[in-house]
Amino acid sequence: MSNILVVGSLALDSVETPFGKRDDILGGAALYASTAASFFAPVNVVGVVGDDYPVEALEFLRERGVDTTGVEVVTGGKSFRWAGRYEYDMNSAQTLDTQLGVFGDFSPKVPEAYQQASHVFLANITPSVQSAVLDQVDPGCFVMADTMNFWISSAREDLLKVLSRVDLMLLNDAEIRQLTGTPNLAKAAREVLAMGPRYVVIKKGEYGATLVSAEGSFTLPCYPLQAVLDPTGAGDTFAGGFVGYLAWAGSCEDQDLRQATAIGTVMASRVVESFGLESLAATTNDEIYARYFALKSMVHFEELPAGL
Amino acid sequence: MSNILVVGSLALDSVETPFGKRDDILGGAALYASTAASFFAPVNVVGVVGDDYPVEALEFLRERGVDTTGVEVVTGGKSFRWAGRYEYDMNSAQTLDTQLGVFGDFSPKVPEAYQQASHVFLANITPSVQSAVLDQVDPGCFVMADTMNFWISSAREDLLKVLSRVDLMLLNDAEIRQLTGTPNLAKAAREVLAMGPRYVVIKKGEYGATLVSAEGSFTLPCYPLQAVLDPTGAGDTFAGGFVGYLAWAGSCEDQDLRQATAIGTVMASRVVESFGLESLAATTNDEIYARYFALKSMVHFEELPAGL
Repeated sequence: MSNILVVGSLALDSVETPFGKRDDILGGAALYASTAASFFAPVNVVGVVGDDYPVEALEFLRERGVDTTGVEVVTGGKSFRWAGRYEYDMNSAQTLDTQLGVFGDFSPKVPEAYQQASHVFLANITPSVQSAVLDQVDPGCFVMADTMNFWISSAREDLLKVLSRVDLMLLNDAEIRQLTGTPNLAKAAREVLAMGPRYVVIKKGEYGATLVSAEGSFTLPCYPLQAVLDPTGAGDTFAGGFVGYLAWAGSCEDQDLRQATAIGTVMASRVVESFGLESLAATTNDEIYARYFALKSMVHFEELPAGL
Repeated sequence: MSNILVVGSLALDSVETPFGKRDDILGGAALYASTAASFFAPVNVVGVVGDDYPVEALEFLRERGVDTTGVEVVTGGKSFRWAGRYEYDMNSAQTLDTQLGVFGDFSPKVPEAYQQASHVFLANITPSVQSAVLDQVDPGCFVMADTMNFWISSAREDLLKVLSRVDLMLLNDAEIRQLTGTPNLAKAAREVLAMGPRYVVIKKGEYGATLVSAEGSFTLPCYPLQAVLDPTGAGDTFAGGFVGYLAWAGSCEDQDLRQATAIGTVMASRVVESFGLESLAATTNDEIYARYFALKSMVHFEELPAGL
């Protein structure tokens, strides 16, 4: 049976966008990814919070089949808190405050019951910690990892070690340019593949995502929405939907990876329609099918007739 | 018989990119668009140059079936000259110098033989001049128009008149946000449709293009290239391929517009592979078919299996 291990941050976010403001809502990469993945397969989540964290609020995840016993609660510790603001250009957040709290010393212990996961998503954490997780899981599992600009500059050697051990690396367009020093994205993607992963996914914010492998590239736009309320967590939700779909499909041929990209896109389109996890958690399978079908229609075009 | 009228600039460009430098090469929106369109249907081009322009260099266009008798040569006048530089981020040019020359007083007279064009492309010129061209052509023709940030701010009323008369408007992402004051592209596109055109194409540089109509939206990525030598003319080449395909197809259903978007994308991928027109003009029909097919494969994914 496929099941998924997600390792990363659980946070309390305070977010302001042109459409509203929320304080101390549930957030963090691992939470967004786990919620999205839970639509497709059983999920085990590993993270750390302080005793200021409303663990009872994770009940909705347990109802969705997510095992949260891997979330360590540090007595007397403070949870990771992030505060950020988006302007009308929703592509990048302005970080107003970051309090790492207990997440600053995160040293994930993967419970024995989780070590046989078929699929692992390493959300954005210190690369050396990502490697320490990989030391605790079945080497045959499918591993996806995310990172950020800070680690590319401050922990490059550790990040290169992670890259040599993962199946798929997620990077946004600025990160892949920073990592490779190559402005051309098609070329940069090939350079990342040469660092180890079989696949790289370039996240391009409102412009969608591109999957690149030795077999070629596959690009999808975002699902078009007239109203994006809060883009927080879109990338992690994409990753969670992606890894969830792969676990459900039980194979990872080129076509499966393409479908996973589409599912990631669909799930990300749901999460940005509300602050926090609200709209994502309320998604129905019918909505997933409908948006997937709409996305497929949105990129469909006919063959070029003969006779030029 | 379909044929195409292209009205716009013919210029002598001096271009510098990280990959080289060329001085006084053939350029201008009308020239890029006409060359691209000439692969699909007969083209008539209307423009103006000075007697410093090497008109004999247009022979390659005449060999491609482009009628250049509508290019007025002003004795004693200077041709439009543009000098620009691109950094590694090829999305935007830094203009180093612009000499409008005779193009500053461009008052296009559409020869009688051209007035029955089935398709018209109004490249980026003063909106009042675009309107003056529309006064001279068959009101039943299919009209595409381009514009730029300068006219959106300095000639907004005239531009709105053009918008009310065209079938399809081309705008890049910055321009459509400027025109509508709406940051969300999906919403901005609807607002432009409400200004008159049946279709809007949002050009997103390296991120591709989106076609929007009342029927929905269609998005294609750029054709991925490992080496982009000079992006000058990519948007006009896209437009020329687009209008050329529509003229060749002889209809403009939703599927035709989608195929035209793909052809525009393919032609644009050819022009950026060299400085100026060199690689575009050398394109073969086999290359067009191959890239079209590759682009179609690049966005293909299978249905979502039942059983979620």
